[in-house]
Amino acid sequence: MKKISEIIFLLSLVSWTSYGAVNDFCVADLKAPDGPSGYPCKPINEVTADDFVFSGLVEGNTTNPFNAALTSAFVTDFPGLNSLGISAGRLDIGKGGSIPMHTHPGATELLILVEGEITAGFMTPFHLYTKALKPGDVIVFPQGQLHFQVNSGNQKATAFLAFSSANPGAQLLDLLLFGNSLPSDIIAETTFLDVEQVNKLKARFGGIGIVSS
Amino acid sequence: MKKISEIIFLLSLVSWTSYGAVNDFCVADLKAPDGPSGYPCKPINEVTADDFVFSGLVEGNTTNPFNAALTSAFVTDFPGLNSLGISAGRLDIGKGGSIPMHTHPGATELLILVEGEITAGFMTPFHLYTKALKPGDVIVFPQGQLHFQVNSGNQKATAFLAFSSANPGAQLLDLLLFGNSLPSDIIAETTFLDVEQVNKLKARFGGIGIVSS
Amino acid sequence: MKKISEIIFLLSLVSWTSYGAVNDFCVADLKAPDGPSGYPCKPINEVTADDFVFSGLVEGNTTNPFNAALTSAFVTDFPGLNSLGISAGRLDIGKGGSIPMHTHPGATELLILVEGEITAGFMTPFHLYTKALKPGDVIVFPQGQLHFQVNSGNQKATAFLAFSSANPGAQLLDLLLFGNSLPSDIIAETTFLDVEQVNKLKARFGGIGIVSS
Amino acid sequence: MKKISEIIFLLSLVSWTSYGAVNDFCVADLKAPDGPSGYPCKPINEVTADDFVFSGLVEGNTTNPFNAALTSAFVTDFPGLNSLGISAGRLDIGKGGSIPMHTHPGATELLILVEGEITAGFMTPFHLYTKALKPGDVIVFPQGQLHFQVNSGNQKATAFLAFSSANPGAQLLDLLLFGNSLPSDIIAETTFLDVEQVNKLKARFGGIGIVSS
Amino acid sequence: MKKISEIIFLLSLVSWTSYGAVNDFCVADLKAPDGPSGYPCKPINEVTADDFVFSGLVEGNTTNPFNAALTSAFVTDFPGLNSLGISAGRLDIGKGGSIPMHTHPGATELLILVEGEITAGFMTPFHLYTKALKPGDVIVFPQGQLHFQVNSGNQKATAFLAFSSANPGAQLLDLLLFGNSLPSDIIAETTFLDVEQVNKLKARFGGIGIVSS
Amino acid sequence: MKKISEIIFLLSLVSWTSYGAVNDFCVADLKAPDGPSGYPCKPINEVTADDFVFSGLVEGNTTNPFNAALTSAFVTDFPGLNSLGISAGRLDIGKGGSIPMHTHPGATELLILVEGEITAGFMTPFHLYTKALKPGDVIVFPQGQLHFQVNSGNQKATAFLAFSSANPGAQLLDLLLFGNSLPSDIIAETTFLDVEQVNKLKARFGGIGIVSS
Repeated sequence: MKKISEIIFLLSLVSWTSYGAVNDFCVADLKAPDGPSGYPCKPINEVTADDFVFSGLVEGNTTNPFNAALTSAFVTDFPGLNSLGISAGRLDIGKGGSIPMHTHPGATELLILVEGEITAGFMTPFHLYTKALKPGDVIVFPQGQLHFQVNSGNQKATAFLAFSSANPGAQLLDLLLFGNSLPSDIIAETTFLDVEQVNKLKARFGGIGIVSS
Repeated sequence: MKKISEIIFLLSLVSWTSYGAVNDFCVADLKAPDGPSGYPCKPINEVTADDFVFSGLVEGNTTNPFNAALTSAFVTDFPGLNSLGISAGRLDIGKGGSIPMHTHPGATELLILVEGEITAGFMTPFHLYTKALKPGDVIVFPQGQLHFQVNSGNQKATAFLAFSSANPGAQLLDLLLFGNSLPSDIIAETTFLDVEQVNKLKARFGGIGIVSS
Repeated sequence: MKKISEIIFLLSLVSWTSYGAVNDFCVADLKAPDGPSGYPCKPINEVTADDFVFSGLVEGNTTNPFNAALTSAFVTDFPGLNSLGISAGRLDIGKGGSIPMHTHPGATELLILVEGEITAGFMTPFHLYTKALKPGDVIVFPQGQLHFQVNSGNQKATAFLAFSSANPGAQLLDLLLFGNSLPSDIIAETTFLDVEQVNKLKARFGGIGIVSS
Repeated sequence: MKKISEIIFLLSLVSWTSYGAVNDFCVADLKAPDGPSGYPCKPINEVTADDFVFSGLVEGNTTNPFNAALTSAFVTDFPGLNSLGISAGRLDIGKGGSIPMHTHPGATELLILVEGEITAGFMTPFHLYTKALKPGDVIVFPQGQLHFQVNSGNQKATAFLAFSSANPGAQLLDLLLFGNSLPSDIIAETTFLDVEQVNKLKARFGGIGIVSS
Repeated sequence: MKKISEIIFLLSLVSWTSYGAVNDFCVADLKAPDGPSGYPCKPINEVTADDFVFSGLVEGNTTNPFNAALTSAFVTDFPGLNSLGISAGRLDIGKGGSIPMHTHPGATELLILVEGEITAGFMTPFHLYTKALKPGDVIVFPQGQLHFQVNSGNQKATAFLAFSSANPGAQLLDLLLFGNSLPSDIIAETTFLDVEQVNKLKARFGGIGIVSS
Repeated sequence: MKKISEIIFLLSLVSWTSYGAVNDFCVADLKAPDGPSGYPCKPINEVTADDFVFSGLVEGNTTNPFNAALTSAFVTDFPGLNSLGISAGRLDIGKGGSIPMHTHPGATELLILVEGEITAGFMTPFHLYTKALKPGDVIVFPQGQLHFQVNSGNQKATAFLAFSSANPGAQLLDLLLFGNSLPSDIIAETTFLDVEQVNKLKARFGGIGIVSS
């Protein structure tokens, strides 16, 4: 009967850990409010393999004015990512399409090109870091840097994305500037754009409020 | 009708982010219990500009025995600071006044002098780092170091403070030693102060318990 | 009546801190669900000295097939450790006993030998770092490295342990491989062990599931 | 001769720390290359009080087209800030002046208004968080968010700034878009600005390269 | 001549940042020794777009006994990743092939399946989390967990990998146990494997040293 | 000849990691200057088992006025600890002895009592957390809190210590106040101690400088 006592002994070693403790993993309880470091942990006895798997990082529908589609696999899609500092996405850009300028304030992005050609890059004041990527190329956009992706080839392009956060935010420049209630005169003053240009884009992106009071 | 589909497409990019996710900001829900990394996040649709603004970092009332006043702008005063690793304060010290020795175990402090003269510094064993500051001078007290601020000029002095934590604790040396129930004989033994001195200050700062049992 | 106003003034300094705020300490409320950075904080007025003390890091019962015992002092045993990045344990290994191969995915371990002789070490591919330890020797097993401890002396051995996490997980290799439902053929394929060996150990450690479907 | 042995004993306690170790502070050796967590530490015996003090956070010269001036107190100005996660600045904006749209990818910014009126804010897609600030108001711009500051009063305005990094980067939107070699057609495609507008601003901000090849 | 002074003013804002400072990005100087948080930063004027791009994440050569190939894009391959907490890889497994059990002590791994079928999973004591993955499925292996990948389909399988570290270590279980000088009797004692099994695998994986002295 | 190609294949997996990379461990090169996150890494081929072992955490010499001795095992003693966030010490206190008030600004301390009785505790303003410890008791002093240890038993006492830093600093209160050049009048003003008491202790602890100029 050595087996039973061995298991009990080994269990006693394991009982150290509360079966899936803070340091090993913490699957998100998505029904609870999130906090600065992620969601509270789901009870370990409710965790299943499905918490660690996401299905659906497939080609998106690019029949839109941008000829582009983005698909995400973030913590809200797949709770096993909680607090692990990583997530994924897929990018499909049709011929002539592009992804507009944006930043991820809380994550570095890695783009792996698998099909077609994408010209991508990011900018700092006075410097541009850009390249026309071929399949098998990987590019990194460091956290918080303004960047863009343009299909520069003759066919559709596909890329996989990874982010250094379980829940990366995306800040599209046009929505930041033209999609909210920021008054046109303040936009013009702080961007040096002409007011006519500002109003034209506010009309396009749904922004309200023409002048500050 | 290009506009609608553009907004929908852009929305789909933005829907990545759950509108203000973990990585972008997390305004404190001050009614919930806090945790090691701060407070849980307030639902994003309840967040307003007022969460990111604090009013009242103005001159404090210095008509007290210390000729000094401290005003704080911490996460409990202004929930937008939650988990952002920064907070602010204001210090007013009348002529002849001072702020007693203290530490912030969880934050570095930066002091910007705007009026008057303050002599401030911190100590390590055998080293003293101190300077008489003029308006426009900035001094840093690294996290956890014992430090002090004395009005060394002929007029009132005013400084703004910044801390590398949304909720810095302040540990005043006199309260640590003389404001609680630590027995006088243990204080004397572990500080080398005379017992008479200890009892005198315990009487002044409200400490109880004269000798250990 | 200077005393009262002094205390009030000092209190006003202290009121900055919400009496034991986020940055100073956060005793675990073990009844609440934990999160990625630990448990929510217990209200400060319910905190007592007992939250910071654990009793019972004494010799364990080694009358088992392994001649060994492990005793732990983790956050679930003593809530004052919450979020402080440290915890403790005690190891007793009888003559001829040992602790099987394991990893702590979320913590570095420090072992202080106080009695007897333990041969301990960890491995990286192609390198072995091991030593026969005498009382007064300290060895470190960096986070996530596979390691072992064997009583290599002629008497019982005792060691104290410290971990760089308040709640370190322990992953015993035999339980990982043979204690769950991982099919024998997959184990054999991915470890190069013979299937007979796998089945023998699955029988011993309680694993179920002989072949994958 | 008790004194000497006491000091020697106390010294032995202190010798633990290598006199100013990793965890207490690490003044920047600005002549060495920096790394991901800051500059290497200056030898402790070369550290002086001046390393922890910066002089010159005074009113800047605002006689320029923007009626504005920024003064900084960062680690490169004052090496005691190294790795402490905080730095400071001062902002002077003349009547009618403003600071253009920008982000700090690696730091949260706190602005304390001391004189005049500044309207400041930041944007997320579809939301604007802004307020007209009075002296004594503090506003926070979370890390990586696009933000602006406009003098909305009838006189000059002065503010002190704090950042949650010893060396915060500043990314001015106009320089990112128009100050480098990013081709006009790519800018137009990824921002929806008209090409004429793009070329006008490239001419103004020094950007080169009209179209991509 | 407004343009020049505008640029000079904007430059003065930018001069805050030392042109690509600590907080924005820090491209690895791979010729310098690395440190706990990565490599020292390459001087910003030597940084080019190529530092942020890696070419060659293409199909590897699987004509080996394992029918498998791994290709990496880590900081040592592409210095722009330095300190950004992310890296990439590609996995090709021929029919019948597999990747043996291993851990990454310092990184979570995300696997995106793009072709074929892979059965992958990780284990904790008593629990197995595994799934047969189809193209478009993503699975996460939390940091430090022992995991495996088996081609369970009828064709070759391809996956892209992302890691939550710029330089993830890989600890192959067979090399840890059988590839170094760890004596067979200690292996047997601490793994419960039969000595014959141990010696057989030591012969296969190059380990030396049969018994401990 | 399967063996060779297997090893080569396995090597190719391992070659990912540069043999002991950033994320697995980084043994200190103590001859190089340290930085904010520790010392640069020693080349992996120079690392030996001795880097991970420290010998000498034995009873110290307590024949001094304090009847006490402290022995340390920090990164400067044992370079394998570098960046692992943990270190150790040993405390011997003779009958009637004590360790004076001190803080560790950069580390939480855990004390495991193994022999005798120690009364230990830490203070916050208005609260004292203390207990008379018996062998087998563990107490935690959270980072930056002022604490003390007194032998409250009838025999010598021995304890092992662990710290949540590889290189914890120790700030002895008496040396901070009385061991340097801080002028007596500033000490008196900012501590409320009588000047006579201050001068008496400055004489004892070697402090210089009687009054500020």
